[in-house]
Amino acid sequence: MQQPDPRRLSLNTATVRKQWSLDKIIDGCARHEIHGISPWRDQVQALGLERTAQMIRSNELTVSGYCRGGMFPGIDEAARRTADDDNRRAVDEALAVNAACLVLVVGGLPGDSKDITGARSQVRDGLGRLLEYSRNVGMPLAIEPLHPMYAADRACINTLEQANDVCDELGDDGLGMAVDLYHTWWDPKFFQQIERAGRKRILGFHICDWLVPTQHLLLDRGMMGDGVIDIRAARQAVEALGYQGAHEVEIFSEHNWWQRDPDSVLATCKARHLTHC
Amino acid sequence: MQQPDPRRLSLNTATVRKQWSLDKIIDGCARHEIHGISPWRDQVQALGLERTAQMIRSNELTVSGYCRGGMFPGIDEAARRTADDDNRRAVDEALAVNAACLVLVVGGLPGDSKDITGARSQVRDGLGRLLEYSRNVGMPLAIEPLHPMYAADRACINTLEQANDVCDELGDDGLGMAVDLYHTWWDPKFFQQIERAGRKRILGFHICDWLVPTQHLLLDRGMMGDGVIDIRAARQAVEALGYQGAHEVEIFSEHNWWQRDPDSVLATCKARHLTHC
Repeated sequence: MQQPDPRRLSLNTATVRKQWSLDKIIDGCARHEIHGISPWRDQVQALGLERTAQMIRSNELTVSGYCRGGMFPGIDEAARRTADDDNRRAVDEALAVNAACLVLVVGGLPGDSKDITGARSQVRDGLGRLLEYSRNVGMPLAIEPLHPMYAADRACINTLEQANDVCDELGDDGLGMAVDLYHTWWDPKFFQQIERAGRKRILGFHICDWLVPTQHLLLDRGMMGDGVIDIRAARQAVEALGYQGAHEVEIFSEHNWWQRDPDSVLATCKARHLTHC
Repeated sequence: MQQPDPRRLSLNTATVRKQWSLDKIIDGCARHEIHGISPWRDQVQALGLERTAQMIRSNELTVSGYCRGGMFPGIDEAARRTADDDNRRAVDEALAVNAACLVLVVGGLPGDSKDITGARSQVRDGLGRLLEYSRNVGMPLAIEPLHPMYAADRACINTLEQANDVCDELGDDGLGMAVDLYHTWWDPKFFQQIERAGRKRILGFHICDWLVPTQHLLLDRGMMGDGVIDIRAARQAVEALGYQGAHEVEIFSEHNWWQRDPDSVLATCKARHLTHC
């Protein structure tokens, strides 16, 4: 089948976060027959965890991922312990909303460090500590490789190969990755490394588009079809491996999609999903 | 020795291109006792190729690289032929100014293509055609891996590993790479791949810094020491392999360094080279 299964579409709530609070987003998903959602912690906190879980259940939404844990590197032991505590809470929240996985933005250089190799070691160690907890309670952790332009301040895992290496090192049980095309479309080893990852490790699949030119490093992502990413080829490749999870739309767009009527944004996501994914 | 050899400092003329024309930049290098220069083609054209070559000779400047050739992918055969012609002219100009190498920004997706694998093949093929010419006249070609944020519109070779793979495929004779830390500092295989490249393939070494936050994808590079790159570790690693070429400063900085008095920019480059490289 060329076109994607429309039931696999999931909405990362960042996509309309400027226009709607989480309860309105959940209502919007129901109204537009979008069956999946991926909420952010700050929005969940604002609505309340219990209320969020209840609204998601009553609207029969699938939670494709919970955003987000991570940020493992710290300037000292105390900072890392604080991050560890917070990450365990994120696991608990992910369980409460019945998320498919906790998405991890692993963190960059702590403080004024220039030691990216050291930061990567801290990520591996922190992930190892969190796994002791998450495996016990049964919440899968999804490492999200972020685009190298975020290596300093957001995530020093920047390729699928790195994510696979960490999975090799720490073990596959309850550990895998979220493949976000915005971050990985350029990767010369994209197809090789998703094959290496295989069905078991691919816990999420995130879509949007890379615009040319891109006006801002963070807040100028494109709607599927408006940029240069061959989303369909990537989607078919992960599904050929057996991936049966969601296609999660995550668009940070200060000057375009965040300025639009959110109902029209959701309608556009649905339409573009069929035509471009 | 911890500190770098000050005689290895080279000025990529982009660093003060908003303030000075090329003749003034050459004079500035002489005045500040900066012994290397790397000029851009548009500046050379404005000053005249003969005049440029003569000024560089009379000031005894080393030309660490000539900027730039490349842009191999084209929407059709005619476009690629036009690029080929232009690249041969760039080789001739590089010879005329006695450059150590012609730096190649290899090009991104042609037209509205989403086929980055195809673009990479076009790069390899175009490079192969140019090598037939450049090897004959004796001008080394330096592939410059560009940061993945430029994969769509500037260069689809984005890692040192890709550059090494292309060198393996096309042969080392007259072919190597320019290692620009702005583009490659995040690369998890940085040290592994410069070792694989070895002295023979490392034809250039470019420095500046990655600022946090970075305000613009193109025009917000930092002065050495103002960002997160461990320049000294990288410089020592390439020199441990036997690299004896220049440390070329290349800073595109619309709102900071391009707004300053160019003499103070050159003085800062000299000082920061010693303290941070």
